[in-house]
Amino acid sequence: MSPRRKLSDARRHQILKAAVQVIAEKGLCDTGIKDVADQAGTSPALVIYYFGKKDVLLAEALSFADERFYAQTADAVAELASARDRLVELVRCSCSVGEADDDFDEWVLWLDLWARAPRDPDVARDRAAMDRRWRATIGEIVRQGQATGEFSPLDPDAFAVRLGALIDGLAIQVVLHDPEVTRERMFDLCMDTCARELGFPWTTEDRARLVHPRRRAASG
Amino acid sequence: MSPRRKLSDARRHQILKAAVQVIAEKGLCDTGIKDVADQAGTSPALVIYYFGKKDVLLAEALSFADERFYAQTADAVAELASARDRLVELVRCSCSVGEADDDFDEWVLWLDLWARAPRDPDVARDRAAMDRRWRATIGEIVRQGQATGEFSPLDPDAFAVRLGALIDGLAIQVVLHDPEVTRERMFDLCMDTCARELGFPWTTEDRARLVHPRRRAASG
Repeated sequence: MSPRRKLSDARRHQILKAAVQVIAEKGLCDTGIKDVADQAGTSPALVIYYFGKKDVLLAEALSFADERFYAQTADAVAELASARDRLVELVRCSCSVGEADDDFDEWVLWLDLWARAPRDPDVARDRAAMDRRWRATIGEIVRQGQATGEFSPLDPDAFAVRLGALIDGLAIQVVLHDPEVTRERMFDLCMDTCARELGFPWTTEDRARLVHPRRRAASG
Repeated sequence: MSPRRKLSDARRHQILKAAVQVIAEKGLCDTGIKDVADQAGTSPALVIYYFGKKDVLLAEALSFADERFYAQTADAVAELASARDRLVELVRCSCSVGEADDDFDEWVLWLDLWARAPRDPDVARDRAAMDRRWRATIGEIVRQGQATGEFSPLDPDAFAVRLGALIDGLAIQVVLHDPEVTRERMFDLCMDTCARELGFPWTTEDRARLVHPRRRAASG
């Protein structure tokens, strides 16, 4: 890879990061190419050179944000040996539980992506690919847990569709600040479903370790 | 109520119906007041007189569509005596199973509503109120079924949040034509969850009666 290409990749990431920030704040409807260029400290001409139009920028910004989330989750999950711990970590990452308050903000991009997908084939294709990978990841953890005897037998693919949909539906409530669904409640509802359906123990102590790790460390 | 006011209400409904059609087809971003006026066979000035701006029109169009869906579902549910049948009917209506192919189309408006809600207090308030009512309806059916002994004991409110989120998350997949989630699969996944958690029987025959009522009538 030539130094010129490396520079371009760095600039491309800088623009995508800026796009994630601006779209999350203003929404896709009200985001202009110039807003993204200003945030990235570059010119609208360069943004158009790389992405062409706003919808492509949304699709790529979301793929970029999702890729980052996916890589972080995959790293966190890979450190864990048991399927149960992996599933708990996947759910915890999805709910941003035990993390900084603004870690949920990028979920708002999914709302724009969903609204855009019915009218834009690029966005629709990226959306479908990301959801397919996400469900495959859940399904794989379930299969692993069934092989080791940690989880009860059930259809792993049907479970993956259900858990993925439950996470999406609850995330909508959290990101829209519904008074009945906080991040902690989202986490509890997801974990209740996982523990009940897959038949593994999930105690108040298990939960406390994950939801308030810093508070426990400070008080313990 | 004066005749003039009655005429205004009829006109108002006509504009809202037109708005539902146009927004569902083009998306909120690309819908102009003029598009709605043309579809309603009226003038942009009149649309602005009634609704002021596009976001208000979206919020009211969605409330209108949701109200219509809610009234239809409430009517269908009210005809049924048992809590189990009521819950099945509520889920069937949500999945538009056994209905015309285009009956799912209005779900696409929710995608626009969710994307708009973080940046518009009117839309956010209407969204919260509709979800609160929907969860209350589910919770009430669960309480009824627990009182008659049809359903197992569990927290009706937590179940309502979970089922509502599951329906939303699966509906996103259906409305975006995900190859893994058809309306029929959405219905099956919801019914599996309901039957398992609430502990009532749900057989292949029960399902066939609802999913293909006309086909059964023709062949039976």
